[in-house]
Amino acid sequence: METVWINGEFKPLSEGHVGLEDRALLFGEGIYEVIAAYQGVPILLEEHLERWERSAAGLRLPLPYTRDQRREVLMELIARSGSDRISLYGQLSRGESRRAHQFPATPKPNEFWFARNLAKYPPELHEKGVKVYTHLDERWARRWIKSTSLLPNCIAKQYATERGGFEAILFNEENIVTEGAVANFWVVKNGVVYTHPANGRILGGCKRAMVLELARAAGIDVREETYSVDFMMQADEAFLTSTTINVLPVVKADDMAIGSGTPGALTRRLMELVDAEISSIIEAASAPAVQSGT
Amino acid sequence: METVWINGEFKPLSEGHVGLEDRALLFGEGIYEVIAAYQGVPILLEEHLERWERSAAGLRLPLPYTRDQRREVLMELIARSGSDRISLYGQLSRGESRRAHQFPATPKPNEFWFARNLAKYPPELHEKGVKVYTHLDERWARRWIKSTSLLPNCIAKQYATERGGFEAILFNEENIVTEGAVANFWVVKNGVVYTHPANGRILGGCKRAMVLELARAAGIDVREETYSVDFMMQADEAFLTSTTINVLPVVKADDMAIGSGTPGALTRRLMELVDAEISSIIEAASAPAVQSGT
Repeated sequence: METVWINGEFKPLSEGHVGLEDRALLFGEGIYEVIAAYQGVPILLEEHLERWERSAAGLRLPLPYTRDQRREVLMELIARSGSDRISLYGQLSRGESRRAHQFPATPKPNEFWFARNLAKYPPELHEKGVKVYTHLDERWARRWIKSTSLLPNCIAKQYATERGGFEAILFNEENIVTEGAVANFWVVKNGVVYTHPANGRILGGCKRAMVLELARAAGIDVREETYSVDFMMQADEAFLTSTTINVLPVVKADDMAIGSGTPGALTRRLMELVDAEISSIIEAASAPAVQSGT
Repeated sequence: METVWINGEFKPLSEGHVGLEDRALLFGEGIYEVIAAYQGVPILLEEHLERWERSAAGLRLPLPYTRDQRREVLMELIARSGSDRISLYGQLSRGESRRAHQFPATPKPNEFWFARNLAKYPPELHEKGVKVYTHLDERWARRWIKSTSLLPNCIAKQYATERGGFEAILFNEENIVTEGAVANFWVVKNGVVYTHPANGRILGGCKRAMVLELARAAGIDVREETYSVDFMMQADEAFLTSTTINVLPVVKADDMAIGSGTPGALTRRLMELVDAEISSIIEAASAPAVQSGT
């Protein structure tokens, strides 16, 4: 049974609900986070909780709980899940009030978090890489806020899914590649790794930040620079990063091979670096528990 | 007590809810309509129901009910409201399914409609006109779909509200005025009425279409053309149109007077034409009922 925590209470996810005038339901006025937890250890927890607070501030959403309270809720959800691989989904809105576009004078925020098993992707996905499709970026101007106004993302992801693609790669009217509908996107050309700068045009992922740091520490030439769709189609390698897929090779875009059409060497190296980093996060978090248990 | 009809059932609005994985709640993936009804007569009902179907098609949302069924629900909500001035709010999503951006294979749509008293605006509002503020248009590229992804609209409306304005007027990066955060926007210059063409950049209101038709029938020179923020600030008159406000004069923008700073002659004429049209719609709809009652 999946559990949700909503406004201070734990209950079965199927029994959780919001009223019909919740502002995320009527206006898409909400923020969200997705956090992965392996072997009971949430990955990049503080980074996600920090972005939660930053997104809330961006929409001027009042925070009904402190970060410590939120962390405690998440640890309890992880414990209750009884699973080794879960994702935590959280959402916050200004809550329910008589429908009007302007913010209510006295908001009663709705905050909920649920844990669910993180399906283990078939290993082929990471070994062989995935196909993607390009799609015009139709989203609004404040993408750094992780808001639940995801309609254009859904449409783009659906477009790719229908063609057998794993992800849609968004480009804007200047033909600049921004990011995936769900994940951040990267290309490699002549030994240099490129990804769009984390400005208002993309949602800077927590996993993206981890990859940047690991790559730099490993002496890899990695640049936060914009690049065109043409540059992407002529890249040597490409990959996606996100909380749930980590580093995932991309081998085809719009049915054309990227580079050799197989996962590239730098992509593989970054996959290994991220896997090692996650293992060491889990070990570091688990170590004290093991000690106190002996 | 306010009543909601949701997925085939009437219940008190306060008891209506959706599950936490409703796709409008998680993704803003929903459509909506607002319909006014005076003395039991819904205004522009078929136009609204048509746009509902068009918006649904735009998002490829399956329609769980026929137009006849929907019309019957609305008439029942109007009857139950026992009020002379109400607004009907309706929303449709692909429903609840395990969270994933791409569309679920077997959607179970959530459709709900509720009626609520339409507050009578103080007469000064229409007599003296209102203030508005300009705000960058941050919305997506398919505005003709009346979707519930309204976050940028809420932020703009809040911006105007905080400054004592009634509405935010949106302009894009080319400095072109598109529409209001909630209502359609019009200006008058040298006896010509201008409003942005009903393409993908605005949501073409049902009341906007009525005003266009009435103006043309009255021999008023009205043009669906784009215009800049500068042109707007130097206009002789300005006004808003929407389902609930009808024609509302605008006399100040960004704290500067538009024209004389009082409702203009053409604006007043259009107010009268719309009021007369609505009265005649109510009369036409009420006439048979009166006859059959005698």
